[in-house]
Amino acid sequence: MNWKNNKVTDQLQIDYPIFQAPMAGGITTASLVSNVSNYGGLGNIGAGYLKPDEVRSEINKVKELTAKPFGINLFVPTPFHEEDLAVKYERMSEILGNFNDELQIDGKEKVRISDNSKQLFEAQLEEVLKGKVSVCSFTFGIPDLNVIKELKKNGTVVIGTATNVKEAIELSEAGVDMIVAQGSEAGGHRGTFRDEGTGMIGTMALIPQVVDAVKVPVIAAGGIMDGRGIAASMMLGAEAVQLGTAFLPCEESGANRVYKQALIDATEDETTLTKAFSGKLARGISNVFIEEMKPFERDFLPFPIQNTVTGQIRKQAALLKNKEFMSLWAGQGVRLAEEMTAKELMSKLIMETDLLLT
Amino acid sequence: MNWKNNKVTDQLQIDYPIFQAPMAGGITTASLVSNVSNYGGLGNIGAGYLKPDEVRSEINKVKELTAKPFGINLFVPTPFHEEDLAVKYERMSEILGNFNDELQIDGKEKVRISDNSKQLFEAQLEEVLKGKVSVCSFTFGIPDLNVIKELKKNGTVVIGTATNVKEAIELSEAGVDMIVAQGSEAGGHRGTFRDEGTGMIGTMALIPQVVDAVKVPVIAAGGIMDGRGIAASMMLGAEAVQLGTAFLPCEESGANRVYKQALIDATEDETTLTKAFSGKLARGISNVFIEEMKPFERDFLPFPIQNTVTGQIRKQAALLKNKEFMSLWAGQGVRLAEEMTAKELMSKLIMETDLLLT
Repeated sequence: MNWKNNKVTDQLQIDYPIFQAPMAGGITTASLVSNVSNYGGLGNIGAGYLKPDEVRSEINKVKELTAKPFGINLFVPTPFHEEDLAVKYERMSEILGNFNDELQIDGKEKVRISDNSKQLFEAQLEEVLKGKVSVCSFTFGIPDLNVIKELKKNGTVVIGTATNVKEAIELSEAGVDMIVAQGSEAGGHRGTFRDEGTGMIGTMALIPQVVDAVKVPVIAAGGIMDGRGIAASMMLGAEAVQLGTAFLPCEESGANRVYKQALIDATEDETTLTKAFSGKLARGISNVFIEEMKPFERDFLPFPIQNTVTGQIRKQAALLKNKEFMSLWAGQGVRLAEEMTAKELMSKLIMETDLLLT
Repeated sequence: MNWKNNKVTDQLQIDYPIFQAPMAGGITTASLVSNVSNYGGLGNIGAGYLKPDEVRSEINKVKELTAKPFGINLFVPTPFHEEDLAVKYERMSEILGNFNDELQIDGKEKVRISDNSKQLFEAQLEEVLKGKVSVCSFTFGIPDLNVIKELKKNGTVVIGTATNVKEAIELSEAGVDMIVAQGSEAGGHRGTFRDEGTGMIGTMALIPQVVDAVKVPVIAAGGIMDGRGIAASMMLGAEAVQLGTAFLPCEESGANRVYKQALIDATEDETTLTKAFSGKLARGISNVFIEEMKPFERDFLPFPIQNTVTGQIRKQAALLKNKEFMSLWAGQGVRLAEEMTAKELMSKLIMETDLLLT
């Protein structure tokens, strides 16, 4: 099987159909993204939480380090109608205050609890358009048809994220060029944007069913860690793969030392799904924060407010090198995570896949 | 890749490393099992719920229809210590009684609520030994070392079922010949026998991690429906595959008409995990019974008592052709389920896999 020459590599003008996942929250440094792209894969900036000027500067930093195509990922705003948000915010602040002693937090950080996701998204988009980024992927929904059209007119390949067949069909009908099909093994946030209960399909089952349902190329994500996973995904009908957890411990990744060590130490059965950090379901290594927040599930604020409100705790935990209060996003393939450079990882992935597929 | 010639096909003396899963509850008719084996795969009797004389007669029926190797599966007894079982039984009977009108049930069926799993298991084993069945697989635990030894001495290949790496290592250390690694996509009962929270790993992530951890051959299960899934499993390092949902709608399967139609109609996002039918976690197509039993989760009786107690409802639902009260076990690949004969399915699977792997 000529896995290196297909619709994805053709359209993106890349050598290998291997995407480094756009992990948000400072993971996808310009160094990581550019090294993956320079090696012939597709590096991706996780820009979901970035302010517009940060989006611009990250794009520019990557451009300084590579002339190859790279991508950027944005979060489609999820409108929510939360009555009594101020009251719920106070309640959540109280709950989180219980960790103050343990984390040596003196006083509550002042945060804006208003939802400016829509304005942020529009401003981020403007930067992506100005930057003429090769690829723009979206998570948590389908952007307006105008947005998709404008990006395409701008020469940008548009990618949507689906977690079941219905979402994939909707994205395809909206005109995206490619679809990331995210299996339940995946670390970090679930991309599910329709009925939440329908988005936990394992990669082995998800990929062929999505491939059969849409005409655009499918990029497999979830539990892929090495050449075996890449070759398997190709057999299932995917034309590219997206790896997150495998890139997390890379030298160039922005994950801090404690997080990287947690990834190296973790086993496949230690991840769990939680909304405690951000208000949206995400997979990470289980820890004290996730466990202790379980009784308060009904008090979680909607995304991204919960994320804002837990920001101080995560920041302080990182300062104290306390992994029990950090969001240790990881997929179920985490036992296979290894420390190396992105270049070494790319080289390993390509060699392993070549051995299996040629 | 020479996928048809490996340690599994060698040791089992079969042509293709394709197992029809041992689905309990009357699914694996002698016709289904023998047709799969006659075609060169490994048919398997799901004998977990069978009485000893039924075990004997099923083995004999299959032997009349094939001279090829076939397997049988037993449930390792799960000891439980339920205080006030009689009280809980009365409470569950009351809860289930709420469905009497809808299901036209007149009076409560008398059932034994004592747990005779251990005696049943020993008597079933005796029949397996007497029948000199080629392969005996186990679910829900590790049989005593003596049992494993005795079976092996008898010429039977012993297979264990694991849902995470730790369970696979334990099984391997106990001396099983092969391990079925059951990914979270799989339909029917979860084989998890250690900490329940650790057994929901997707097949894409599970297989390579198990393969790396044990020396015995690994059989991939969960979400595999066609040649794509078989080829993918081989890439992940498995040396055989086990398919359940794909065989369920086969002409020879014991699934009734309503169940088969439900499988044909279902989509990948319609399965759910429930303990409502048996007391153990299992994946099936969501229906009214599963939904309406959710509030009573704390009242569920331990396996297999809950299974016994819900027997009347399932039987009556089958009589009335009411799929809302039947256990419609199915994996997440269910959208790919098709009606055909087992021979046609085997032929399709082999042809598809050959096309991908040669």
